[in-house]
Amino acid sequence: MLEKCKSSSRIYDGRVLNLRVDQVLLDDGTQSTHEVVEHRGAVAIVPMLNNDHVLLIRQYRYAIGKELLEIPAGTLEIGEDPQTAAKRELEEETGYRSEQVTKIVEIYMAPGYATEKIHVYLATNLQQSKTQLDEDERIETKPVRFSEALQKVRSGEICDAKTVCGLYRAGELLTKPT
Amino acid sequence: MLEKCKSSSRIYDGRVLNLRVDQVLLDDGTQSTHEVVEHRGAVAIVPMLNNDHVLLIRQYRYAIGKELLEIPAGTLEIGEDPQTAAKRELEEETGYRSEQVTKIVEIYMAPGYATEKIHVYLATNLQQSKTQLDEDERIETKPVRFSEALQKVRSGEICDAKTVCGLYRAGELLTKPT
Repeated sequence: MLEKCKSSSRIYDGRVLNLRVDQVLLDDGTQSTHEVVEHRGAVAIVPMLNNDHVLLIRQYRYAIGKELLEIPAGTLEIGEDPQTAAKRELEEETGYRSEQVTKIVEIYMAPGYATEKIHVYLATNLQQSKTQLDEDERIETKPVRFSEALQKVRSGEICDAKTVCGLYRAGELLTKPT
Repeated sequence: MLEKCKSSSRIYDGRVLNLRVDQVLLDDGTQSTHEVVEHRGAVAIVPMLNNDHVLLIRQYRYAIGKELLEIPAGTLEIGEDPQTAAKRELEEETGYRSEQVTKIVEIYMAPGYATEKIHVYLATNLQQSKTQLDEDERIETKPVRFSEALQKVRSGEICDAKTVCGLYRAGELLTKPT
């Protein structure tokens, strides 16, 4: 399937995202418009405090007007290696460091209109360090028994897509005999 | 945590999404900017052809420049009931109808900047009908053994977030003794 960009308008260049609108020609001559949210990509981390507990964070999400319970995450810096970003975001948001950070899944969040891919990592062997929140970040950490976190997915209390993906995938790896 | 909108600029009003940029005041006086992608929300469906096979779709995703293997999904019409939308999208995209469509999870795709919530349904008892694709939709349906679909999540061949969430959640419900 070929979709060829005929023209592109840059609508907005911002802090977290850009927006462009492309006029596209399909291979049978049909024309279409694509609104594309450009995003640098992000990392998220499932941080295991020990074999039984995962460290979640609670934060207010302005776009949806609600507090969510999530795994730590953050946008990639320009040119930053995702694993380095995962270690950085884990420490900044939770105050824990880890040298055992392994990629467990890569996901596109909204491929219908956004370029964003999230690299999700499992972090074990956490060492206490110091949080370094951005000036406008307000984050509360919350250790949760892993089985209870999965229960919160089922009940709907956890409803953030990257967190749901990360917890299920980590759950498979954590219960797998090594 | 209170975040108060001080001023809001509408940047773009489009077909699939709108963009606005808000200047926000945190409760301690800190100022911040939020770029908000407004999206009506969507539905996605895990369609079980029988106990063993799920019906996936393959389509080219212009924003990321790749074909993805996904569960059927689509944007809510204005004022549309999500369950009605799930039945409609299932039929339009796959050519199968179902009267047994049950919500299994609701997920926010990118709560850091987008309002989009996806309502994910499990559809069983599929009856053959007719596809009705939008003029610019090119979709190939692909029945996949359910266990193989989960294997494709683990291998990275399936990397669409709503699909990963839907398959894991459906997998729990399908293996649960009734």
